[in-house]
Amino acid sequence: MTTTKNGTTLRLANWAQQAAPSPMQDMLALTARPGLISFGLGLPNQELFPREAFAEMSGKVLREKPSSLQYGPASIAHTLKSSIVELMKRRGITCTAEQIFLTTGAQQGINILARLLLEPGGQVLTEEITYTGFLQVLEPFAPELLTVPTDPQTGMDVDAVEKLLASGKRPACIYCITDGHNPLGASMSMEKREKLAQLARTYGVPVIEDDPYGFLSYEDVSLPPLKALESEWVFYVGSFSKILAPGVRIGWMIVPEELMDKLSIVKESYDINTANWSQHSVAAYMEAGLLTGHLELLRREYGARRDTMLQAIAEHFPAECQVEKPSNGMFIWARLPEFVDVPTLLRDAVEQKGVAFFPGQAFATEGSEMGKHAMRLNFSNATHEQIQQGIRGIGELIEKQRG
Amino acid sequence: MTTTKNGTTLRLANWAQQAAPSPMQDMLALTARPGLISFGLGLPNQELFPREAFAEMSGKVLREKPSSLQYGPASIAHTLKSSIVELMKRRGITCTAEQIFLTTGAQQGINILARLLLEPGGQVLTEEITYTGFLQVLEPFAPELLTVPTDPQTGMDVDAVEKLLASGKRPACIYCITDGHNPLGASMSMEKREKLAQLARTYGVPVIEDDPYGFLSYEDVSLPPLKALESEWVFYVGSFSKILAPGVRIGWMIVPEELMDKLSIVKESYDINTANWSQHSVAAYMEAGLLTGHLELLRREYGARRDTMLQAIAEHFPAECQVEKPSNGMFIWARLPEFVDVPTLLRDAVEQKGVAFFPGQAFATEGSEMGKHAMRLNFSNATHEQIQQGIRGIGELIEKQRG
Repeated sequence: MTTTKNGTTLRLANWAQQAAPSPMQDMLALTARPGLISFGLGLPNQELFPREAFAEMSGKVLREKPSSLQYGPASIAHTLKSSIVELMKRRGITCTAEQIFLTTGAQQGINILARLLLEPGGQVLTEEITYTGFLQVLEPFAPELLTVPTDPQTGMDVDAVEKLLASGKRPACIYCITDGHNPLGASMSMEKREKLAQLARTYGVPVIEDDPYGFLSYEDVSLPPLKALESEWVFYVGSFSKILAPGVRIGWMIVPEELMDKLSIVKESYDINTANWSQHSVAAYMEAGLLTGHLELLRREYGARRDTMLQAIAEHFPAECQVEKPSNGMFIWARLPEFVDVPTLLRDAVEQKGVAFFPGQAFATEGSEMGKHAMRLNFSNATHEQIQQGIRGIGELIEKQRG
Repeated sequence: MTTTKNGTTLRLANWAQQAAPSPMQDMLALTARPGLISFGLGLPNQELFPREAFAEMSGKVLREKPSSLQYGPASIAHTLKSSIVELMKRRGITCTAEQIFLTTGAQQGINILARLLLEPGGQVLTEEITYTGFLQVLEPFAPELLTVPTDPQTGMDVDAVEKLLASGKRPACIYCITDGHNPLGASMSMEKREKLAQLARTYGVPVIEDDPYGFLSYEDVSLPPLKALESEWVFYVGSFSKILAPGVRIGWMIVPEELMDKLSIVKESYDINTANWSQHSVAAYMEAGLLTGHLELLRREYGARRDTMLQAIAEHFPAECQVEKPSNGMFIWARLPEFVDVPTLLRDAVEQKGVAFFPGQAFATEGSEMGKHAMRLNFSNATHEQIQQGIRGIGELIEKQRG
């Protein structure tokens, strides 16, 4: 990779030699173009961040607590943990502060769990289409991926999970996004939730339940997360990134207390501890009771954008395109007619219409073609006008490809 | 680990089954006792954190930049990187913003580099006594550790490094702390620096130069870090934790540009990106020119505490105890007479004198006994009075053990 004068080359670990930048990085660069309408990344809307309130909270914390800028063990963040316990009740989860482990965002939580559970070359069970950040976590382990089909409406094929487990497979973990699936937008049916929780318990296989979108629900009724149905074998991963702001870099896990020591070992080797300052600021924000109103605002604002996008799709995409109405999250998954060449569509969309989306295949595990004629559309990070204009533009380009 | 009703047990990865909490965690818990004088942890002095200035900067950033709470690619943090380029000039390092990679603290930098360079079961070269956080990073890789002796005055035995490399060993990396070694307090001699830089170049073995203490120098003359002597094969790891505050959780690496893509892949899988908010706040602090004066304050304050501790040791420790005067950092390494049982001394010190230190052996690699009759004493996080009282107490207990 780098060479000295005598021609010696830097050797990287085997996995790293093969590793290629994620499509997210390219998309992040692409969407930095000024004026581009982006349905590409899963960004929360920065116009809605409670910046003034947060500036107040963090200023107060800095001025009043000398220890806010110090190192600190995860255990001292008791106030924040107590607030999270209260928050989780709204998802139907009963837990204690002792079961909460704070992380530098949910991504770190998933990474730490993989580190703890997975042997190099070990097995992991996931859907054929899933969050790329989880696949990135797995890369250095070169694991054997066991994949199951997934339904754009009801999520993971839990019968297929059962078949794998019944056949004797014992993956180190099962990864799933129960609500507002990324990229499908799907929320698992109640029947599937109950069955998956039961399978985890019966076979003693831990489930990593990634739940960044559970609180972003746009319907009157929300289904309980897996963690509410099975407290021992489900490891819940939560995040403030989508419900407050990604910049605070704080997530949490709810795990059995017996795991805390081992989690702390990995966490310490990763970044010593999660920023005290940020923890205290989020705690103050929650203690002031501000998160509840903010969540209502987000549900209202994002829900309305979802509806605008669905309506625009109905109006401007060809009739063969299929979409579901997501009850949660930030994404609409659009299945396109087979004549659509998605990479070409993306290029033309960016160049001719100034709009970006994410090709479905970017989320596919090896062998899956489910994303080949599909796209992920983010609706949280654009105005209603941009959504209408962008969807119309993409619709026109799809029609053009019909030829 | 956790069991279901039918007796199934949660399986952890092999390394994790063995892993035990680090002594740092125990010490962190121990030193939380109110009133305890702690020379144990390597904590900066929180009374000296520039909290008011930082509250101002971060408030301004939050109010003026909507994107400060958003996700963001590492590449956008150009202002901070430019300030770091300027800062590094003071250490004699010439680099460009494109060679700087921002991390969630230096610990993450070291972890990412290990992930990129090290194969499971691979070789790593380090000193027989070294930073425990590096050893923790290595644990999941179950590496073969090649260790070399280390001198409390002049640091790493570079001749021993040469012998290993000349004999054909090609470790994935060499880890060293050039200035203010943790736990020894030693700074490498100029001759050793030049030779180690030359060895890295000749044999094409990357050196991870961990430099949290380089700017905390208490003498008129500072020696250049390895990175200033060899720009290609030395990967420099810097940190704001000791020169500003750990709570900002920002560190940086200076590495060849060709490595950036691969580093980004690992970083993204760890925690997506370093907190924008914190990056912008540190950038604003540096742009306002405040870091220079703060560094002068820290040098003056910590330097005076170092002198107080050395004087107290000379006065209260038995004559057989040996210490060096550290030119940098936060630690004094005290070698004790062979009759001293260090674990007993620590227990008595905490219980009878209300003072804690770190047993030397906690930093030892397997087979090394260098730390058996030694202790690491931190001088940054106590008042002059506490230093005098604490050292007197420990001295009395050492005398008592003479029996």
